[in-house]
Amino acid sequence: MNASSDLQATLDASRKSWVESANDPSCDFPIQNLPFGIFSDGLNATRRAGVAIGDCIADLAALESAGLLTVPSSGAGDSVFVRDSLNDFIALGRDTWRSVRIQLSKLLARGNTTLHDDAELRSRALIRQADATLHLPVQIPGYTDFYSSKEHATNVGSMFRDPKNALLPNWLEIPIGYNGRASSVVVSGTPVRRPNGQLKLPDQERPVFGACRKLDIELETGFIVGRGNALGESIKCGEAEDHIFGMVLLNDWSARDIQQWEYVPLGPFNAKTFATTISPWIVTLDALEPFRVAQPAQDPQPLDYLRHAGDHAFDISLEVLLKPHGAKEATTISRTNFRHMYWTMAQQLAHHTVSGCNTRVGDLMGSGTISGPADDSFGSLLELTWNGKNPLQLKDGGTRGFIEDGDELTLAGWCQGDGYRVGFGTCVGEILPAHK
Amino acid sequence: MNASSDLQATLDASRKSWVESANDPSCDFPIQNLPFGIFSDGLNATRRAGVAIGDCIADLAALESAGLLTVPSSGAGDSVFVRDSLNDFIALGRDTWRSVRIQLSKLLARGNTTLHDDAELRSRALIRQADATLHLPVQIPGYTDFYSSKEHATNVGSMFRDPKNALLPNWLEIPIGYNGRASSVVVSGTPVRRPNGQLKLPDQERPVFGACRKLDIELETGFIVGRGNALGESIKCGEAEDHIFGMVLLNDWSARDIQQWEYVPLGPFNAKTFATTISPWIVTLDALEPFRVAQPAQDPQPLDYLRHAGDHAFDISLEVLLKPHGAKEATTISRTNFRHMYWTMAQQLAHHTVSGCNTRVGDLMGSGTISGPADDSFGSLLELTWNGKNPLQLKDGGTRGFIEDGDELTLAGWCQGDGYRVGFGTCVGEILPAHK
Repeated sequence: MNASSDLQATLDASRKSWVESANDPSCDFPIQNLPFGIFSDGLNATRRAGVAIGDCIADLAALESAGLLTVPSSGAGDSVFVRDSLNDFIALGRDTWRSVRIQLSKLLARGNTTLHDDAELRSRALIRQADATLHLPVQIPGYTDFYSSKEHATNVGSMFRDPKNALLPNWLEIPIGYNGRASSVVVSGTPVRRPNGQLKLPDQERPVFGACRKLDIELETGFIVGRGNALGESIKCGEAEDHIFGMVLLNDWSARDIQQWEYVPLGPFNAKTFATTISPWIVTLDALEPFRVAQPAQDPQPLDYLRHAGDHAFDISLEVLLKPHGAKEATTISRTNFRHMYWTMAQQLAHHTVSGCNTRVGDLMGSGTISGPADDSFGSLLELTWNGKNPLQLKDGGTRGFIEDGDELTLAGWCQGDGYRVGFGTCVGEILPAHK
Repeated sequence: MNASSDLQATLDASRKSWVESANDPSCDFPIQNLPFGIFSDGLNATRRAGVAIGDCIADLAALESAGLLTVPSSGAGDSVFVRDSLNDFIALGRDTWRSVRIQLSKLLARGNTTLHDDAELRSRALIRQADATLHLPVQIPGYTDFYSSKEHATNVGSMFRDPKNALLPNWLEIPIGYNGRASSVVVSGTPVRRPNGQLKLPDQERPVFGACRKLDIELETGFIVGRGNALGESIKCGEAEDHIFGMVLLNDWSARDIQQWEYVPLGPFNAKTFATTISPWIVTLDALEPFRVAQPAQDPQPLDYLRHAGDHAFDISLEVLLKPHGAKEATTISRTNFRHMYWTMAQQLAHHTVSGCNTRVGDLMGSGTISGPADDSFGSLLELTWNGKNPLQLKDGGTRGFIEDGDELTLAGWCQGDGYRVGFGTCVGEILPAHK
């Protein structure tokens, strides 16, 4: 088999794994997925690269040192997998990511006995997720957040500006984006402290200082740059996907009251910089390939530098769950899909670099809030409750306009295949009370 | 002498160096300055830490290995000075920066024979700046740019909004800032490519794609974070200067036409991300101490979290020079002073972190364009020419509304002492034509 058919085989819906938990149709990590992350465990506190399979993690360094995994372009010296981020591995290039994923797909496939029959190695190289701690998968040199859902931009424009001219004139021409704060990107599970800041109350002339009263989520995905570009050069739209390593779920926590007071004229700052949560597993574009779909029609047709032939959206089901502290059950507060996004990741990256701005391996690019057309498919509480006016009913009897202390917010996402799903795992954060 | 009097001695206006070029009253690098940078030279391509003295650079690793310089909190292993950036040195803490500066002040002082009389070591440890290449002094994990000149904000507001209400309501309450793009921060001397992007021409319904026609500078300073803060915690205004390692000159290159079309509602993006130039030498806050002055009166009095007792501005003279390609002489197009800034660096850092946003060693924080009250003290061509309406007359006979290809823009800055000046060197960039 050649490389292309090897790649196709990793996506074969009928392929099963001898890691039986991976074959559960509701498992996010079947053998068709094989997302990359960084983990440690109780027996080995060293952070290292792993790939999720069923309820386990394949320890890539252990497999490499046992000779079951080879890294084509790796130099001599330490394993590129024994690192606290995936950056060095990603920097080796797409042929390497692909080769490693293909090797793992074979090694973990039902019928392959090499690792399956080596109980000693298996006990070392296959760690239960329940016993592991997941860390930020990449060191993020730069974080950019886009604003690419037409429904979201329209909702926000209707709420705060003019419902009749909800979209600003530049929105249909530019994949609008802004620089985010990379330092406060945290991995799923990290508690998030409610921010303090300046709030402008309608009945007072001057702002007051205090805890955010309109704390919100933004349901997003993010992509990780796998190949950068040099300063002064740009990435062509048609080649932009070659620069993407994979995708994660992203919660762009937002303090709406701080945002509304501060954002003119230079954009959101303290309203966003206090925390951004991402899911720990990076799902490769290779694994997402079967779920590629057409993006929504774009009218007007974008300027030349934003054009690409073919399909560049992905059919990714998304959900948001809210669980108050101590509640028995979470409430699903939104259901939407990444395919609604007006601007594609390729267009975002082409636009980001058209000025000559350089990108680097590990850069994180957020999609912007993903809102669908239906009222229950909006990606923020701001939209779901229409700025708090229509509180959501929760399963435990409570209601929510915005997030309360102790609330746990979970994003989930998956691509539905035939009898399996390529999932992202979850992106979770619980809100701690503001500092006094 | 104790540490405090040792520190005072480094600032003594009468102290001279046996490096005679340092004693020239117009030299930016007298013994009172001793700024830190990263350099390499023809004989030794390894990037390493140095301190500017007169027309030379003291090679800190060479002095350390010769036993003439000790780094108090340094661990075993490689020298903290043999690095691509100053970050590891800075991370050792203020006592260490201060100790190294004090040791160098003694070693280089007239009358000290230790290094002066060791010709062999001197030839290795004292490199002529003319023979050296200066590199980016820090690896910058995050870049934030503020907007803290009242005159600049008023000018921009008058030009693009309403002259009668030029300042937006939040400006007098918040040290407005936004996240910049760290990847494209380059060291002085790096050529800057004119960016392409979307331009919205007044006579056309849709934007066109092309080279920026309104390329501009922003005269700024920047400070380098020397001690970070943990996520969820904040830095108190009164303690914020303890977190600052030092200052540089910063040119926040700006594409005004791209900016005007893209910036609503999330702020400038492609208009700024193509390049930001900083000067190579970081002048420590210790060296700036004699030039501390009162900041402008603030009315209304800021909210509590933005208050600090004492003087927190610095008297730094600033100039901008423009030299067309091939011209014999540069024209000084602006003269201003950092002391005009409404918001202090301490207030900027307190505001940045009040939401719990973490900062890291090496973070760069731009002041925002520094405009003074006089027409010839504005920090951008946008203001100096009033959006191109009043072109500047150049010495070679040409005029400028905005920057043309081949123009070399230079920022210069210094604190004037009694018979000496603590200078920043220059921050230079020449404009290359846009890619076709």
